[in-house]
Amino acid sequence: MDYFRENVEKAKAYEPGFQPPFLLSQESRGVKLNTNENPYPPSPNVMKILSQISSEQLRRYPDPMGNAFREAAAQVNGVQPDNIMCCNGGDELLRIAFEAFCDENRPVAYPVPSYSLFPVLAKLQNCKAIEIPFDSEFNLPAKLSGTGAALTIVCNPNAPSGTFVSVEELASLADELSGILLIDEAYVDFAESNCTALVKDFDNLIILRSMSKGYSLAGLRFGYAIAQPDLITGLLKIKDSYNVDAVAIVLATAAIKDQQYFKENVEKVKAERARLIEQLRNLGFDVPDSFANFVLAKCKNRLVGAACSGDSSRRRPKPEQEALRRAEEPAVARKAAEVYEKLTQRNIYVRYFNYPRLKDKLRISIGTAEQNDKLLSALKEILSEFG
Amino acid sequence: MDYFRENVEKAKAYEPGFQPPFLLSQESRGVKLNTNENPYPPSPNVMKILSQISSEQLRRYPDPMGNAFREAAAQVNGVQPDNIMCCNGGDELLRIAFEAFCDENRPVAYPVPSYSLFPVLAKLQNCKAIEIPFDSEFNLPAKLSGTGAALTIVCNPNAPSGTFVSVEELASLADELSGILLIDEAYVDFAESNCTALVKDFDNLIILRSMSKGYSLAGLRFGYAIAQPDLITGLLKIKDSYNVDAVAIVLATAAIKDQQYFKENVEKVKAERARLIEQLRNLGFDVPDSFANFVLAKCKNRLVGAACSGDSSRRRPKPEQEALRRAEEPAVARKAAEVYEKLTQRNIYVRYFNYPRLKDKLRISIGTAEQNDKLLSALKEILSEFG
Repeated sequence: MDYFRENVEKAKAYEPGFQPPFLLSQESRGVKLNTNENPYPPSPNVMKILSQISSEQLRRYPDPMGNAFREAAAQVNGVQPDNIMCCNGGDELLRIAFEAFCDENRPVAYPVPSYSLFPVLAKLQNCKAIEIPFDSEFNLPAKLSGTGAALTIVCNPNAPSGTFVSVEELASLADELSGILLIDEAYVDFAESNCTALVKDFDNLIILRSMSKGYSLAGLRFGYAIAQPDLITGLLKIKDSYNVDAVAIVLATAAIKDQQYFKENVEKVKAERARLIEQLRNLGFDVPDSFANFVLAKCKNRLVGAACSGDSSRRRPKPEQEALRRAEEPAVARKAAEVYEKLTQRNIYVRYFNYPRLKDKLRISIGTAEQNDKLLSALKEILSEFG
Repeated sequence: MDYFRENVEKAKAYEPGFQPPFLLSQESRGVKLNTNENPYPPSPNVMKILSQISSEQLRRYPDPMGNAFREAAAQVNGVQPDNIMCCNGGDELLRIAFEAFCDENRPVAYPVPSYSLFPVLAKLQNCKAIEIPFDSEFNLPAKLSGTGAALTIVCNPNAPSGTFVSVEELASLADELSGILLIDEAYVDFAESNCTALVKDFDNLIILRSMSKGYSLAGLRFGYAIAQPDLITGLLKIKDSYNVDAVAIVLATAAIKDQQYFKENVEKVKAERARLIEQLRNLGFDVPDSFANFVLAKCKNRLVGAACSGDSSRRRPKPEQEALRRAEEPAVARKAAEVYEKLTQRNIYVRYFNYPRLKDKLRISIGTAEQNDKLLSALKEILSEFG
């Protein structure tokens, strides 16, 4: 007997962003801009509550529902506690959604490129993945409403593009779909609006939220779902009974209650984001506006002109220019990978995805002003090496 | 479209033991002996490491593999780090195993009565559950080797009986099975031996361990698998990438490294277990020897004699006695439920399972000497009320 199910045997594990070993220790040499962590620490209230945790809280099982957090999150989001389910990170909610809604006869659909975990979960759940390409501006693909999928996922703001689809468009999509619409709002704290208010209108809508980015608690693993109570009740059946631990519950609760700190933190990230985008554009990268705590920077042809052939395409006739542009694409991709490698050698970590439409881009998390400056200086150096 | 898959729609959520609300606060009125927590606090080293956790550890993603823990657990268990996978509680490993090995064509098998989560997971994974009854002494059922299941689970020590199957018998079972054998050793810290040494001999064996009971860390959600590297690699594909949080990793590592404290803690629980069993037997309960941190106490007929009919069955002829014994069984079950209720009214929480073969029994976690004394006094009172 083959021990594993065939789909599991064939699945490739999701690869999380590289965690440099020295960063796992207490040291903090290097600049880590590869996994979209918030560059600023969590609320001081979190550290205060941490210092008050008793051995009793460790010894006993946690509240299986995490009700303290549900109440706090309900208040912040203007919903009721029974609209909330606590999760061991947003990833757990995604996995639970696949288990709840998808199987061999119930496909999932999502636009691409997006969060690279979706196809991994589809493989593990043995369901068909209907991937609808975004256009080059990352507008919501019209085809998404017609797939017949049991579960449709839209990451908004999208990862890794950082782009944002309007609440109105997503409301229309929820209305058109016969299955579930899950909006992965892991990065929505850095956008200007969100879809929470739609929950009361749609019984097929699930909002995913994360405490990792906006609340600086990636180490804690805490996310939550917002949906109508009937959906929450069904999802609760699937989660592990004690899916969030006692420490995480009290710290996440402390964090979400400190809305003033949260808002200031988010504003600081947004200000650095604006500065980083401007500087990257000045360096010659193509960078779409971002509504998340990262940017997707495209290495333009111009960057690789000299390194590529030494020829300027401007002198060539138009059809030949077009042919060259196509031919150059792999070179641009190589260049993006090379920039990535050269940054890594300098202990500056960004994310490079060797996937279609992403090979010529770097995803860069927004760091502190100091980290962003280090990144920008290094990029200047690296680009000058290319001549 | 029905939003949920049919098997999920039909599934009933697992019901964890009741968490009395006042126990979720910092207070500790009442006696909580219903979810098999260790009555003693975790190692002082755990609290020391807790006090040193920095905001950086919360801000950054954790090590996805929990390598610090893997190394410590490997050393304690005499295996290599690549024999270990960290889990968000033992329950996560069970769920991952169902996902890895079971589906509509790949059944699970386990003896019953056992951990009541198994049938819930089977339902959610939409696989057939082959339940093989234990005999009255909870010996390993011979039929278990012939089911053809893709996954066979043996909880050892078994919950909720507390009984233990020998390592030799489980080695034979691993040898006979063509599928996976998962031995749930969540309670093995309180037994006299364990199956770790078998891992090197069987490529189809997975051992489940928990930090909840022996290490007093139920609040943390930390368990682990021990298996050959090929199995670990397959299981790792399925787990959420960051399944264990940064705080849990460092605290669980501190706990498992303090073997001296662990051993002393376990010895204290065992000593109280011996005393509690003796006292419960003196009160007239049937209690099998336990190898776990709980006991399964059966309300014998004698306890309900007066309350039942006022008649002594001893005066009746033998066939009539037998008929009466059968007829009395529901009464015994009612009595167990009544004892459970009366304990709860006194803020003493034990576990009552309204399941076949368990209705006439109470599962009681081993508490501190003081807690056990409170339980025993309350039981004496309650039994005397029955006359």
